[in-house]
Amino acid sequence: MREPAVSSSVELNPVNPDLGSHAGHGTHAHLCMPEDSRKRASRRLAIARGHVESIIRMLDDPEIYCMDVLRQIKAVQGALSGAGEVVLRGHLEAHVSTAHERGDANELIEELMEALKYT
Amino acid sequence: MREPAVSSSVELNPVNPDLGSHAGHGTHAHLCMPEDSRKRASRRLAIARGHVESIIRMLDDPEIYCMDVLRQIKAVQGALSGAGEVVLRGHLEAHVSTAHERGDANELIEELMEALKYT
Amino acid sequence: MREPAVSSSVELNPVNPDLGSHAGHGTHAHLCMPEDSRKRASRRLAIARGHVESIIRMLDDPEIYCMDVLRQIKAVQGALSGAGEVVLRGHLEAHVSTAHERGDANELIEELMEALKYT
Amino acid sequence: MREPAVSSSVELNPVNPDLGSHAGHGTHAHLCMPEDSRKRASRRLAIARGHVESIIRMLDDPEIYCMDVLRQIKAVQGALSGAGEVVLRGHLEAHVSTAHERGDANELIEELMEALKYT
Repeated sequence: MREPAVSSSVELNPVNPDLGSHAGHGTHAHLCMPEDSRKRASRRLAIARGHVESIIRMLDDPEIYCMDVLRQIKAVQGALSGAGEVVLRGHLEAHVSTAHERGDANELIEELMEALKYT
Repeated sequence: MREPAVSSSVELNPVNPDLGSHAGHGTHAHLCMPEDSRKRASRRLAIARGHVESIIRMLDDPEIYCMDVLRQIKAVQGALSGAGEVVLRGHLEAHVSTAHERGDANELIEELMEALKYT
Repeated sequence: MREPAVSSSVELNPVNPDLGSHAGHGTHAHLCMPEDSRKRASRRLAIARGHVESIIRMLDDPEIYCMDVLRQIKAVQGALSGAGEVVLRGHLEAHVSTAHERGDANELIEELMEALKYT
Repeated sequence: MREPAVSSSVELNPVNPDLGSHAGHGTHAHLCMPEDSRKRASRRLAIARGHVESIIRMLDDPEIYCMDVLRQIKAVQGALSGAGEVVLRGHLEAHVSTAHERGDANELIEELMEALKYT
């Protein structure tokens, strides 16, 4: 789980950049994450990382109480949900709402239903 | 959220250490997290932290695809749920299942219901 | 909660029926739920209703065990999630993937993010 | 799913009725659901059933909008979570907090962790 593969599982079609996609550096255009979403998700994940670190430090204290740890873990899960919402919103705006025009709606919807199942 | 308070919100009663609690270093005994749970939760959180770091690196890549990021965020949330289960199990074993004997069942159950609401 | 209002909170634009919407009976066209989704969601909800009824009968038995009831409640929640997935999939196919063309992407995405927050 | 089995998967030990269990009608005592929890869970489930029925009626209307249906399904899921909390609280009070005294803590905790996994 530590080294997630950075590959897309969607069949990518050449797309019109006006429809919310960015040109890839290869011969094919790709569905890339909007830059604004990347920056915002990254900032939120950096905060979540700091929070995880502080829980790891809490756990060095033999006096720590279970429920205080559980509350902190829930708080990080909330922060990660917030990061996930940033990513999802960017995806809906840039890719899903324009899928009919590009012709890849079926793939995107299958993929989205799969992702939301584990919410 | 980055510096969670390390304080218990439960009224702590002096307790019999045989009932799954550990003596505090002060004059009062506390309901402390079992050492085994602390170690196991800590290991799981260290893995989750590494995973968050790898997602932050993914987000530096302008070619990254939204759904790949979302899947990784879900995977970290699963890892955090696993850490939460370790903590919860330790709490149920050490504290909740012995609460009637100690006389603090009401406080512990209120607190547990509150924590589980946000699962 | 028993008599949910049957009104849409989205500003509805006149739409091209080819983009997955159905003409309303008034002067305006509406974003209506695809018939296939309505039928499938209805069937799943009828099964969930039968399951809720059987849990209510279980609860008349003074010998019933808490965890057996909790498991059944979880099973109904799973069935309702299934019904929700049918509705969501129909919505993504019929309305969200065509939103850019209709020009109501912003409203639909806000509304979808709000709905998914409570998943 | 419509006819859930009404059997407990826990090895039931003869128990002291003072520890939150009720005598069964056979020769063995059982861990039975507290009467107050049964009545309260039943009332909440009756409300949820009425709500499911009203959604089924909504779905007969060809004009109905997907997101309105999804919101109502979420509301029922919230009502079922409320019923589940009633059951869980009764179980924690009557059975889990007294498990150490009865000697069945391990079984109850395994079972509870399993049930909470699907929350």
